[in-house]
Amino acid sequence: MRKFPGMMAVALLAWPVGLLQAQSGRQAADAAAAYTTAHRAELTAGFERLLAMPNVAADPAGLQANAQYLLAALKARGASAQLLTVPGAPAVVYGELRRPGATHTIVFYAHYDGQPVTASEWTTPPFQPTLKTVDGEQRVFARSAGDDKAAIFAQLTALDALRAAGMEPQANLRFVWEGEEEAGSPHLEQILMAHRDLVHGDVWLICDGPVDQSGRQTVVFGARGDTGLEITVYGPQHGLHSGHYGNWAPNPAMMLAQLLAAMEDADGHVLIPHFYDGIAPLSALEKQALADAPDNEAMLRRKFWLGRTDGGGRHLLELLNLPSLNINGMAAAQVGARATNVIPAMAVADLDLRLVVGEDWRVQQQRVVDFIASRGYFVTDHEPTQAERTGHARVAWVKREGNSYNAVRTPMDLPMAQEVIAAVKAARGQVVLLPTMGGSVPLGAMERAAKTRTVTVPIANFDDNQHTANENLRLQNLWNGVGTMAALETMP
Amino acid sequence: MRKFPGMMAVALLAWPVGLLQAQSGRQAADAAAAYTTAHRAELTAGFERLLAMPNVAADPAGLQANAQYLLAALKARGASAQLLTVPGAPAVVYGELRRPGATHTIVFYAHYDGQPVTASEWTTPPFQPTLKTVDGEQRVFARSAGDDKAAIFAQLTALDALRAAGMEPQANLRFVWEGEEEAGSPHLEQILMAHRDLVHGDVWLICDGPVDQSGRQTVVFGARGDTGLEITVYGPQHGLHSGHYGNWAPNPAMMLAQLLAAMEDADGHVLIPHFYDGIAPLSALEKQALADAPDNEAMLRRKFWLGRTDGGGRHLLELLNLPSLNINGMAAAQVGARATNVIPAMAVADLDLRLVVGEDWRVQQQRVVDFIASRGYFVTDHEPTQAERTGHARVAWVKREGNSYNAVRTPMDLPMAQEVIAAVKAARGQVVLLPTMGGSVPLGAMERAAKTRTVTVPIANFDDNQHTANENLRLQNLWNGVGTMAALETMP
Repeated sequence: MRKFPGMMAVALLAWPVGLLQAQSGRQAADAAAAYTTAHRAELTAGFERLLAMPNVAADPAGLQANAQYLLAALKARGASAQLLTVPGAPAVVYGELRRPGATHTIVFYAHYDGQPVTASEWTTPPFQPTLKTVDGEQRVFARSAGDDKAAIFAQLTALDALRAAGMEPQANLRFVWEGEEEAGSPHLEQILMAHRDLVHGDVWLICDGPVDQSGRQTVVFGARGDTGLEITVYGPQHGLHSGHYGNWAPNPAMMLAQLLAAMEDADGHVLIPHFYDGIAPLSALEKQALADAPDNEAMLRRKFWLGRTDGGGRHLLELLNLPSLNINGMAAAQVGARATNVIPAMAVADLDLRLVVGEDWRVQQQRVVDFIASRGYFVTDHEPTQAERTGHARVAWVKREGNSYNAVRTPMDLPMAQEVIAAVKAARGQVVLLPTMGGSVPLGAMERAAKTRTVTVPIANFDDNQHTANENLRLQNLWNGVGTMAALETMP
Repeated sequence: MRKFPGMMAVALLAWPVGLLQAQSGRQAADAAAAYTTAHRAELTAGFERLLAMPNVAADPAGLQANAQYLLAALKARGASAQLLTVPGAPAVVYGELRRPGATHTIVFYAHYDGQPVTASEWTTPPFQPTLKTVDGEQRVFARSAGDDKAAIFAQLTALDALRAAGMEPQANLRFVWEGEEEAGSPHLEQILMAHRDLVHGDVWLICDGPVDQSGRQTVVFGARGDTGLEITVYGPQHGLHSGHYGNWAPNPAMMLAQLLAAMEDADGHVLIPHFYDGIAPLSALEKQALADAPDNEAMLRRKFWLGRTDGGGRHLLELLNLPSLNINGMAAAQVGARATNVIPAMAVADLDLRLVVGEDWRVQQQRVVDFIASRGYFVTDHEPTQAERTGHARVAWVKREGNSYNAVRTPMDLPMAQEVIAAVKAARGQVVLLPTMGGSVPLGAMERAAKTRTVTVPIANFDDNQHTANENLRLQNLWNGVGTMAALETMP
């Protein structure tokens, strides 16, 4: 990864932090609160219109409709806007509001695509936004309600609120809204590199992910990297009767269970050799931030019905600063009413690997592959042939996720980092500072292509069911988010 | 299990074995061969008509249509036939051909129901019988082609062949065709007990399962028992983002993998305490039969693309005389294109347990449950509540299969066993004798209710894909099977 350019660091050091900004941040947040209170019904309906537009990777036409809708929304607010495209990828929606005489440029990143949906798992249809009361508060249920259309809607609404209050941005504002973040952002770097002048900024504000579980506004200075592997292990060429061949024909579900089981101890510690090698240690400031963060452990365990947690008693926020190995899904033959007495022909597991600063995703993938081989497997990168399956005691087909990226962490003591903290504090009061988000955003690609550093300012509630069924946003988080965005949109 | 009644043993000892029977068996098989050769096209079409009738447990109307069709087939051949029913269960199709002056009664058992189908996994639709050439020989592909409509069709056709040759049965013949064998025969014993006089016989011939993999006709003297368990283990109350909670929220797929992995060593030997306790040893005659059986190991490994087998190098036929534990299916969240980066809420495994003589299925289930508990799980017999999940580090919901039964083995040196061997040898020449079939048939219920002993005479090819997609029957096995049935139908 490229180093942070020295020239820009000088520019950032010269950036004033002070009373003026705190005042403008506070005024902007007040303007946002007045505006969202006055227009609540209309804003809720507008958010629902955005959520009703299907936005999954399997539906390119749906993604395009979202992009056109957002392009129009930017133009309606006076932005110079366009779609940044490369063949075969959803467009990046781009807009700019130039401020004559501005000395800084602030870029707001968010994404308009959503995770795939399994509609049968949803209580209400994923693209039919539905208001429900949860713990006495209103939430809207729909795919991308929290991840990540809330951020886009808050950025747009903050512009409206500022205009309604007669306030104007001080810096040039740029908006970069991606359309394939949930697919691993395979084309983002390419699109940004093709438009470096457009997307460059003094800082990129990543508006994605949830705030701290305590509900307090959060500023995050990095994100874990992400990669993955799909592992298929093989039994007989086709399913065999479990009576006539049970005890003799190897069962691939059992083989997969034994392979996966050996990857972790009972406490979730990964046993794959070198898995934790090379991790960059936390700075004193980062450790202090973790120590200052709210202790949400007991509340989270209750909320998620957990009788224990992994990690040997360490707190969630500490564990998010370590790499992880997660089984996203596992399958062999059928369970439930469709189960039959069969020795399955194969068994599959989908693994997610999160990385922290100091690790490389290709190396981490290879560590897992080496481990599989060390367990006696002949590992292929293609569907194994009859000869390969007959010729080896154990065969695993490993598909390596290519749309992967490394972790990024911006030092909290960089001047621009301090600026963002000041603006958010002005708007929201007490703020939780975290070195790393557990989830992943392709920060490295952004930093390389836009020649900038990133700071993440999420607005969604932590319990928004993002990436699963019944995703939702607590509406109060949307109104708070408009205030936070208004403060950031009026940074000097 | 009740003892075999002494009176009947005396009757069997008095049953003549000799030249007369060998002649009639040979003549019957010759008559069958002449008949099936002369009517091949018509018989193939007739078999396809039977296979085209859907016969899965989820379709009671389909099962009833099968029963009516078979009832008519028995009546058309002069049998006194009826449906034996209890509420809520598919009927047993019953028929009798009385022979005036007969001193013995022979009962032919088969089943007309089939395993569930997952149509998408089939090359051609499961209830659209399709002829295909495999290794230069014709096979018909359809659910139940091998398991177990072939046996029913062979029994009916053998009657037609005998009549065409002017031959008649010597004993009373009874036909008992069950409709819920694939569901574990939950009502069979009840139905038989309600009609004990109808279903009693000097011997029950179980016409189900495949012949030896060498292709030779097989006579089997028992079957493994069968039971099962479904295990669900729990993670968070709903799926959680694998980034924001990975390393902290326990992953139920990993928990299940570790639980299952601990049940067996890498060679398939079950590690659950007492799993192999109480097994009745094989007799000298049974051990000799195993030693005389063909060695099909290398052929089977090639055919099934296996680079190794479980069991430490022991042969399949030896391993089938041991209990087994098989993972029928395993599932957590999604794999493939629908996988998301999620910590699943639960993970499920469906286990099949086969038993041998000397073991009780309830005890074997309990051994597995005790093992799960010994791994730190709180085991429930119901979907665990929030309080149960929050209050225990590990929770497993275990559903115990109720439709289960124990293994049965008829000694090969019983006179009636020797009679059956003589008839089959007369028809088919060299015969493979096996103490135990790997698969399961509810022999115990039959023996208790009908006060008889059982001998199994299968006719299907071993590679018939029973219990999975693309089930098929090699047509030559059907023609051979008609000969075998004709010889058995003319036993004295």
